[in-house]
Amino acid sequence: MSFFATPQSLSFEQPLQLKGGGLLHAYQLTYETYGQLNAQRSNAVLVCHALNASHHVAGSYKGQAKSEGWWDNMIGPGKPVDTDRFFVIGVNNLGSCFGSTGPMHLNPSTGRIYGADFPVVTVEDWVNSQARLLDHLGIDQLAAVMGGSLGGMQALSWSLQYPERVRHAVVIASAPNLNAENIAFNEVARRAITTDPDFHGGHFYAHGVVPKRGLRIARMLGHITYLSDDVMNTKFGRMLQAGDSFKYSTQEIEFQIESYLRYQGDKFSEYFDANTYLLITRALDYFDPASAFKGQLTQALAQASAQFLLVSFTTDWRFAPARSREMVQALVANKRQVSYAEIDAPHGHDAFLLDDPRYLSLVRAYFDRIHLGADA
Amino acid sequence: MSFFATPQSLSFEQPLQLKGGGLLHAYQLTYETYGQLNAQRSNAVLVCHALNASHHVAGSYKGQAKSEGWWDNMIGPGKPVDTDRFFVIGVNNLGSCFGSTGPMHLNPSTGRIYGADFPVVTVEDWVNSQARLLDHLGIDQLAAVMGGSLGGMQALSWSLQYPERVRHAVVIASAPNLNAENIAFNEVARRAITTDPDFHGGHFYAHGVVPKRGLRIARMLGHITYLSDDVMNTKFGRMLQAGDSFKYSTQEIEFQIESYLRYQGDKFSEYFDANTYLLITRALDYFDPASAFKGQLTQALAQASAQFLLVSFTTDWRFAPARSREMVQALVANKRQVSYAEIDAPHGHDAFLLDDPRYLSLVRAYFDRIHLGADA
Repeated sequence: MSFFATPQSLSFEQPLQLKGGGLLHAYQLTYETYGQLNAQRSNAVLVCHALNASHHVAGSYKGQAKSEGWWDNMIGPGKPVDTDRFFVIGVNNLGSCFGSTGPMHLNPSTGRIYGADFPVVTVEDWVNSQARLLDHLGIDQLAAVMGGSLGGMQALSWSLQYPERVRHAVVIASAPNLNAENIAFNEVARRAITTDPDFHGGHFYAHGVVPKRGLRIARMLGHITYLSDDVMNTKFGRMLQAGDSFKYSTQEIEFQIESYLRYQGDKFSEYFDANTYLLITRALDYFDPASAFKGQLTQALAQASAQFLLVSFTTDWRFAPARSREMVQALVANKRQVSYAEIDAPHGHDAFLLDDPRYLSLVRAYFDRIHLGADA
Repeated sequence: MSFFATPQSLSFEQPLQLKGGGLLHAYQLTYETYGQLNAQRSNAVLVCHALNASHHVAGSYKGQAKSEGWWDNMIGPGKPVDTDRFFVIGVNNLGSCFGSTGPMHLNPSTGRIYGADFPVVTVEDWVNSQARLLDHLGIDQLAAVMGGSLGGMQALSWSLQYPERVRHAVVIASAPNLNAENIAFNEVARRAITTDPDFHGGHFYAHGVVPKRGLRIARMLGHITYLSDDVMNTKFGRMLQAGDSFKYSTQEIEFQIESYLRYQGDKFSEYFDANTYLLITRALDYFDPASAFKGQLTQALAQASAQFLLVSFTTDWRFAPARSREMVQALVANKRQVSYAEIDAPHGHDAFLLDDPRYLSLVRAYFDRIHLGADA
């Protein structure tokens, strides 16, 4: 069942002090809401997005039949997170490129486009900016905050930064920090972008160009890490793009997997902002709530008072189940209420966005429980 | 114990027909030999190299104390492949950039540097060119052909193309073909190179430039796939490059892993040829002896008559142990003599080059057996 979504924007004049030392004097957040806030203002669910998604979590835009929310299988009327019951909020993160203030906007301090001068933003800054949006909406406490991947990190951080404002945190296909391999992949993607001659030190807007070569490489590489080895072999294997013999060429496409990756890279380079890519991968790199506790995750998570649902996927090698188990163990050590499911899914990291009946049923059951207010 | 190596070059005037349809009218192979060929000419061991290595397998060059063979821990006097017993041959592959005819050499047909016009070469072509070198050296039959990774593919292909010329094939950290993920990583690396504006369609030599940006990205990415997740976490983890707090920068180095990868990329871009990178990754992509048998590896390997040693490493996710087991099973199904070891090593794919006592002992024992001629 389809429904219409309407993006809104809100301007904040109160400066936002950022963890990295920067300051945003004024900024705008673009967001969408679905469903109705109840009289007690107790049924709000905040959905946090990952690297390349946005506030457009669910529904279609009027007149744009093709525009679809990135979590349409999860959120909407009758969906696992049922907008007939919950008031769901999607918000575009600061520094992103889909409406909220970001590097492609005018820097009021200089009168030119921010570009590389946009201040470094962290997961914690996003959570602080989202909290102000909730203030505006008159929501003191969330029924739940949820997200997958980087969105899961925001959900976890919410439970630590504003424990009293979160009844449930739903952390899917996520990790308590990036490991060396995760950082390594991010760094290769960043170098592809920053060494593209069209990057111009991050001020390419003034040159009327876009570092598409770098964005393409970044996306192709990212895409490999989103898929499992298994699903790649099943979907593409060694299948040829055309005919049944090789062209014997170093530059032409031979295999279907090459065509698929080039297509993904081309598409991404048409709409995604290069500085946003740098900012968001850095936010991933920096996130590490245990670092303030000498690496002791159990101590870090002692601050949380929410109930938790964590989900991981067996073939996810970007944020493997072991990373979710670290969080589960730290929460259990703190005697927090935790549900954890490891879903046997073939799709790798991307599984959190896909239709897996066990996964969707599990989230549905969890939100049914929230709705029944067993914990209220 | 160090010893001196002397590279030699041999010109071949007989044209080499290539599997991909190309023809090399004349070419040169650069090679080294260590030890003495015995009177029966029966103690020769051919060592095949992987992507970025060369004929300089072992020993030092006179006057160059720092120059060292890439498999010095494996090959030399008293080493597992003991050059006091065996006559070892290292040969640089056609299309490579360390002496044998490659894309940076003059194309006699056009009078200009080959560049992107260098014909596509395959594993099978390398084996054919190596066979001619053996003819020149008067070696009818190898005691063994050996290699790791792409070198292992050449050893396997030797056993299929020239079964009567190979008594033993030693195939280490290898695979019977690339899977979709392997091809995907190669494709990202190739695209980084070919979309570098300094690539000039593969004819950058005439422009006096080198597509270093692309080569750096290719190498950084390759390096990630050579290391295990575990060893990356142990060696680098989330350790910072300087001090104990972040700089909060999207472009500066924060983590040691970033510095390490940039260093590896920079170094590689100074000496490796971009067209060679394309050619050799394509040779990897194309290799698939089972393809002529409708994907039936058992049928493909029925052609081999050699005895085999296969070795894999538990944390190698580039060519996982399962890929070696495919070959073992196909050989066993053909009732070939096969020894197989899966070494529990933390280092990932790179383990085949490193000092693991169990691994080196195992290869030593295998070559001791060859030396004793138990099979002669």
